[in-house]
Amino acid sequence: MLSNAQNKYIRSLSQQKYRKQYTVFIAEGDKIACEWLSSDAGVQMIVATPAWLEKNYQLIGRHPSAEVCSVTEQELEKVSSLHTPNQVLLVVSMPDAPEHLPARGWSIATQQVQDPGNMGTIIRIADWFGIEHVIASPDSVDFYNPKVVQAAMGGHLRVQLHTADLQQYLYSTELPVLAATIDGDSIYAIENPGEGIILIGNESKGLPAELLQHATHRVTIPKKGGAESLNAAVSAGILAAFFAGR
Amino acid sequence: MLSNAQNKYIRSLSQQKYRKQYTVFIAEGDKIACEWLSSDAGVQMIVATPAWLEKNYQLIGRHPSAEVCSVTEQELEKVSSLHTPNQVLLVVSMPDAPEHLPARGWSIATQQVQDPGNMGTIIRIADWFGIEHVIASPDSVDFYNPKVVQAAMGGHLRVQLHTADLQQYLYSTELPVLAATIDGDSIYAIENPGEGIILIGNESKGLPAELLQHATHRVTIPKKGGAESLNAAVSAGILAAFFAGR
Repeated sequence: MLSNAQNKYIRSLSQQKYRKQYTVFIAEGDKIACEWLSSDAGVQMIVATPAWLEKNYQLIGRHPSAEVCSVTEQELEKVSSLHTPNQVLLVVSMPDAPEHLPARGWSIATQQVQDPGNMGTIIRIADWFGIEHVIASPDSVDFYNPKVVQAAMGGHLRVQLHTADLQQYLYSTELPVLAATIDGDSIYAIENPGEGIILIGNESKGLPAELLQHATHRVTIPKKGGAESLNAAVSAGILAAFFAGR
Repeated sequence: MLSNAQNKYIRSLSQQKYRKQYTVFIAEGDKIACEWLSSDAGVQMIVATPAWLEKNYQLIGRHPSAEVCSVTEQELEKVSSLHTPNQVLLVVSMPDAPEHLPARGWSIATQQVQDPGNMGTIIRIADWFGIEHVIASPDSVDFYNPKVVQAAMGGHLRVQLHTADLQQYLYSTELPVLAATIDGDSIYAIENPGEGIILIGNESKGLPAELLQHATHRVTIPKKGGAESLNAAVSAGILAAFFAGR
């Protein structure tokens, strides 16, 4: 059972303010919890059903300093930030932000991406294609939002997550900048620069002119049908597959 | 203001059972509502804030038989199936299911795709790439789930949506079947068959053997990093871009 203080503490972590204050975040669900417990991440609390705790005692044993709380599914539901009830919730220490923005290889940069599902999926895409860095503008959704963590499916453990002023970074970098835009050159025609920054804009507004001016490649996924736009994460996935995946 | 009966009716439409019974569904949000009102769809009810109604009186005029209800944002929130409050909600007549499964061109087939965001995004992908058909197994999430409608961003108006036993369809069709799988041939190496069915499996289980046996192409998006899998909609988007988009 959780004490009132524990209940309140965990629930507070759905807000960025408290995640920052305590420098921890929440990871929920069986798959993601197992990934985190298999890693060297600093796990602070393991809140789970008795059945889950019993099944995963070996993984739990790897984290002797973690506080383990056995709860019912109903209790778990009360502190969860997600809709679908899960069997387990972890409170994990937030890693230090990486010191240096990438100067080589592939990365994905997001300008004001707001939807947590999109941001998490972008981290998962980076993780799939071996893209080591995701860089978000300060007004993007927080990397440690519980829905971002869930959609990233463990990507936080392998992808370096930066928050940075993109205008400044793109101005200073020598890397090619491939900006996803509606009126650029076709992905089918662009020669692969071999490394670079895949730049994705806001879900409804796209990329602002002050970032587009830094693009070495304006990249368009040609439209054949009637849709007004493609989802931001799907666009990122297609650009990653065309350029970073080969 | 909405009557109690109207309130109850609209709220019931978050359930598939009632959508089937009344053969209507809900479309929410400014962009999507405007798309529907610009079309010839049978709009039954328009529930919106006074400001929205005033701004869109011309579009509303195109649907003289629709019942128009002016409501506050709070009232709208109460009947909405979504989290973010919107300014408008439509009740729309469900179109008849298309008669024939596709025999030519490109289509996307989904086996037991469960997440409404994924299904909606797949419809939006089809809409972008001019793929005229999406075919879902009967155990997939309902095409008319409010979250599917929202994520599809109007794709329902242009993409033909079929529900069918995929085993039977794939057995009988002469179209190439491109199955997304973890251990197939690289997307970078497969010759484009020019038309076919892009086959996407369940979010955690992938495609079952009985469907995989009908694949003329087993297609893999090569993994370079540590992720266990890619999101189903992102995979569909990448396959669509590689094959249907060219």
